[in-house]
Amino acid sequence: MSSSETLQELGARLDREDRLAERRQLFDLPAGLHYFDGNSLGPLTRAARARLQQTVDQEWGRDLIRSWTKNGWLAAGRRIGARLAPLLGAAPDEILVADSTSINWAKLLHVALDLRPQRTKILCQIDHFPSNLYLTREIADARTRRLHLIELDRLIDELDDQVALVCFGQVDFRSGELFDLAALTRRAHEAGALVLVDLSHSVGALPLELEAAGVDLAVGCGYKFLNGGPGAPAFLYVRRGHLAAARNHLPGWLGHSDPFDFSSTYLPAAGIERFTCGTPPILSFVALEAALDAFADLDLAALRAKSLALGDHFLRWLDTEPAIETITPRQHERRGSQITIRHPQAAAWRDLLDRENVLADFRPPDLLRFGLAPLYLSFADVNAAGAALRWIANGAR
Amino acid sequence: MSSSETLQELGARLDREDRLAERRQLFDLPAGLHYFDGNSLGPLTRAARARLQQTVDQEWGRDLIRSWTKNGWLAAGRRIGARLAPLLGAAPDEILVADSTSINWAKLLHVALDLRPQRTKILCQIDHFPSNLYLTREIADARTRRLHLIELDRLIDELDDQVALVCFGQVDFRSGELFDLAALTRRAHEAGALVLVDLSHSVGALPLELEAAGVDLAVGCGYKFLNGGPGAPAFLYVRRGHLAAARNHLPGWLGHSDPFDFSSTYLPAAGIERFTCGTPPILSFVALEAALDAFADLDLAALRAKSLALGDHFLRWLDTEPAIETITPRQHERRGSQITIRHPQAAAWRDLLDRENVLADFRPPDLLRFGLAPLYLSFADVNAAGAALRWIANGAR
Repeated sequence: MSSSETLQELGARLDREDRLAERRQLFDLPAGLHYFDGNSLGPLTRAARARLQQTVDQEWGRDLIRSWTKNGWLAAGRRIGARLAPLLGAAPDEILVADSTSINWAKLLHVALDLRPQRTKILCQIDHFPSNLYLTREIADARTRRLHLIELDRLIDELDDQVALVCFGQVDFRSGELFDLAALTRRAHEAGALVLVDLSHSVGALPLELEAAGVDLAVGCGYKFLNGGPGAPAFLYVRRGHLAAARNHLPGWLGHSDPFDFSSTYLPAAGIERFTCGTPPILSFVALEAALDAFADLDLAALRAKSLALGDHFLRWLDTEPAIETITPRQHERRGSQITIRHPQAAAWRDLLDRENVLADFRPPDLLRFGLAPLYLSFADVNAAGAALRWIANGAR
Repeated sequence: MSSSETLQELGARLDREDRLAERRQLFDLPAGLHYFDGNSLGPLTRAARARLQQTVDQEWGRDLIRSWTKNGWLAAGRRIGARLAPLLGAAPDEILVADSTSINWAKLLHVALDLRPQRTKILCQIDHFPSNLYLTREIADARTRRLHLIELDRLIDELDDQVALVCFGQVDFRSGELFDLAALTRRAHEAGALVLVDLSHSVGALPLELEAAGVDLAVGCGYKFLNGGPGAPAFLYVRRGHLAAARNHLPGWLGHSDPFDFSSTYLPAAGIERFTCGTPPILSFVALEAALDAFADLDLAALRAKSLALGDHFLRWLDTEPAIETITPRQHERRGSQITIRHPQAAAWRDLLDRENVLADFRPPDLLRFGLAPLYLSFADVNAAGAALRWIANGAR
């Protein structure tokens, strides 16, 4: 057990040195729970609870319809979008919170095809998240484009002057592999194609530089590392240079330049709020907005450093047990903020971990995902998960 | 003032005779407020507040990711849809809660066009709600159908064997006029066309009989007479006979037959849950679900009777003041659950009413809407609104 004791001690030291440790107090996590599912559903923040209570009791309960202006409900999509700007490395007016990731993906696929009307092909990552795959296929068919499903490491072989769009997730939702957004974007642009990227598994876990990377279009999820609550609203990003020509194929009354004119003729808003469609679910919006308080004044380099350190420490534990196969790349530059292991008994292991108060995520047929959320996870959590996994893997042999 | 006293007294008597009066206790309305904006944003129910607190503190805060199954989050769209069945006069498995009214309208427009592939025309009510108009135009263009905007009373002149779909709102959002859903549907069907109707201004205010009326497709809003909260999720209805052939053009992972397989190939769920797209905003879903408690064991005929009686009493007040022009039809069978008046000073009147604690809705250029929500409005509220309006109209002369 000496190696186990050493890892335990190392974890304890890393916790003492952790500059982000105090942010855990912003979250209301169950005592004793080691929560590695924040890449699936981020936990409740104290700010979100307080804000929801305020919105329910005062804004809905007392101010009622007046809240649309008085309490800023109407502006919520733009306002929360602007708060994401530092996390995305983008300008506040390039981001809108609206609808779900899937619906936003559909909107931006149309934008990309409008911007490259003569090109006949869409390249999409073969293992991309199902919703996005389904919608990409649907829209490719509707607009008579050919959809090619590709491995991202073969992108360069697939690019030609018929490719309108390259689309993928920045972090693979199964393996946790991080792709080089800037390099992929550069290659796509060299071929005259646009890039649409899903940031669901990267936003809030690592610094993003959408502007610097030249990314054209992006969407992402509010309920994973952003901790916005179950099914929290999603966001979309349209690079400023594309905005003037970007048309919402799901035009709705709240994306009109003057919604309260109730005009029969659609005149899109000048800004990115044109990508609003129907009336937004405000209770879910304010929970997301308040959850972002946990990112206030945050050094994103420190966030990334802690995420990688949590992963490194977890890998130390996994390396002590030969029965455990890790499919997440080890190199920092290729690793997102989760570690995925593969084992035929992954489903059973998930249940065994659950009994040890370690929550992880099973993805069929044989994957176990551990989300590493640097704002609230400690190295003690990693110690607990590592020790439990080693115990389970030993028992399983 | 004798006529005024008489109306006050009549209102008081109607309140004493009101069998629905006790339901007001289910709502948390500000003291002294006369709230005629429930056709725009229904008020907070005590049940919704309690349910949100439970969902936040226990389900999100304690149970976390397990809540998707343990606390029924995954099934919420179907479950809440089923609870709407008695209000819609439809079967539980024909209704789904999902997304916004606008997004659902887009989904069902596609379904209708798929079901009538050879027909070239769409007929849509000329004054229909803007979001639906914009989306109808967009989808008509994308699918090369011709869109004809029509007055519903001229429907019979416009129908021919090229009409795929007739679409409209059951209650006009400006005038409050109620259209004869069964008769319009019968006429559309005689011409071989389908009907898509928006129930946003009727559901929860009057009994609906979608099955009996033969309606093919419908959508509606959760935040008006259903009181589901600001931007509450919407619902959609697909008549059982159409379901097998009804394809979701916004296919998402939660509409897959087995979402947690994360298959790259879309296989739609057998039931109406195939119209789910992305992950639903659960906080907003549970608020809507709890709000529906106010409709439990409700006699919908009594609801309708009270709605009409509130309107009749309001019209008595308005009829005493010649400066007030009412544009809502007086006949019960042509009246929804709002009274709309027209006056050049409507915007100023809205503000004056506000100071008298009477909340109504201005719709440009010159309309003032009074929503009549029978679950919580009293005849005393109508007395207050009527007296204030008469006072304002007098002052304005």
